[in-house]
Amino acid sequence: MTDDAKPDDAKPDDATRHREKMEKRKAVQDAEVAAKTIEKGLLIVNTGPGKGKTTAALGLALRMLGRGHRVGIVQFIKGAWDTGEAHALKVFGDRVAWHAMGEGFTWETQDKARDIAACLNAWNQATDLMADPGIRLLILDELNIALRYDYLDLDAVVATLKARRPDLHVVVTGRNAKPALIEAADLVTEMGSVKHHFAAGVKAQEGIEF
Amino acid sequence: MTDDAKPDDAKPDDATRHREKMEKRKAVQDAEVAAKTIEKGLLIVNTGPGKGKTTAALGLALRMLGRGHRVGIVQFIKGAWDTGEAHALKVFGDRVAWHAMGEGFTWETQDKARDIAACLNAWNQATDLMADPGIRLLILDELNIALRYDYLDLDAVVATLKARRPDLHVVVTGRNAKPALIEAADLVTEMGSVKHHFAAGVKAQEGIEF
Repeated sequence: MTDDAKPDDAKPDDATRHREKMEKRKAVQDAEVAAKTIEKGLLIVNTGPGKGKTTAALGLALRMLGRGHRVGIVQFIKGAWDTGEAHALKVFGDRVAWHAMGEGFTWETQDKARDIAACLNAWNQATDLMADPGIRLLILDELNIALRYDYLDLDAVVATLKARRPDLHVVVTGRNAKPALIEAADLVTEMGSVKHHFAAGVKAQEGIEF
Repeated sequence: MTDDAKPDDAKPDDATRHREKMEKRKAVQDAEVAAKTIEKGLLIVNTGPGKGKTTAALGLALRMLGRGHRVGIVQFIKGAWDTGEAHALKVFGDRVAWHAMGEGFTWETQDKARDIAACLNAWNQATDLMADPGIRLLILDELNIALRYDYLDLDAVVATLKARRPDLHVVVTGRNAKPALIEAADLVTEMGSVKHHFAAGVKAQEGIEF
């Protein structure tokens, strides 16, 4: 006898059907969670033309700080991290180690040799932080841009990232991530722009873009 | 005379060409920035199957807090915001107002009536925070899930969001954003999953997923 053919008083009510559906869903989810047993420091890449690449990295920093760990941040473009997040992260004191602002390369200098030197300097800071056992998460903000312009050697960067400590999570942000980096990564998210307020003439605003 | 036909000593060198290219690029960017003059509180939607929807909202919260503003957070799924970010945000004291954890709906209850009541309660908290002139950014975490299950009335929610104060930024997160919400939004980002470590058997880890 099909469900539809049952007399009304024998049909499971909406609440019961809902409970059964959710029970099944939870069982599937529990089995999926139980099947995953590996713990490892992840190489995470946030790329794509949409918003959220850097802010998602910042959110991970907040989560890691909340868990009591230290976080390292290196910015490869000057001014990409502006005073909003810089001020906020100050409350965490020396639990946030970051590469001094005002370095990194920039469209403002128009000096390629200087920009390459700034990228190399930032990369040296990054490798120092990778060697610091107190750092649990390292954010390499806009590293993809430096790689795209060949201001750093892609093979060397990828090899160093792959050789990271087993418990170190690294987040690389920026558009146009190189295929070799994506290949080496554990988690890659493409931020796609569905709709953008700049197209409607809205300017960059405090607390949102900077 | 074409550039190639010039004698060697008359050709612009690499540094000069680079500087000219960057100057042009900067001029285009400056003109674009100058053309955008509108300031308004944005309705932002972070959707899609990839990671980063909630963490990007958290990053915006950090940026807004760094600018000295207060932030409101309402979670529509119990446990979606776990202790990592909760602990970290405590350092900002009452500058972060959030809807108490342990409410919101969950796959664990398997009780639809209770879940609908929890969503309505969370939505009431959201409207209270929207009315608080001290709040500059309001995060409605996983609201898309509540809307997808029709636990809240879509038309009423969208109408309330559209009628927000002109200086209030709202971020809605969760997969499967409804078309009516996308239509009303100023900024919509689709987080796409290019590669995910869960597929390689890596488990959810402290500081990354929670």
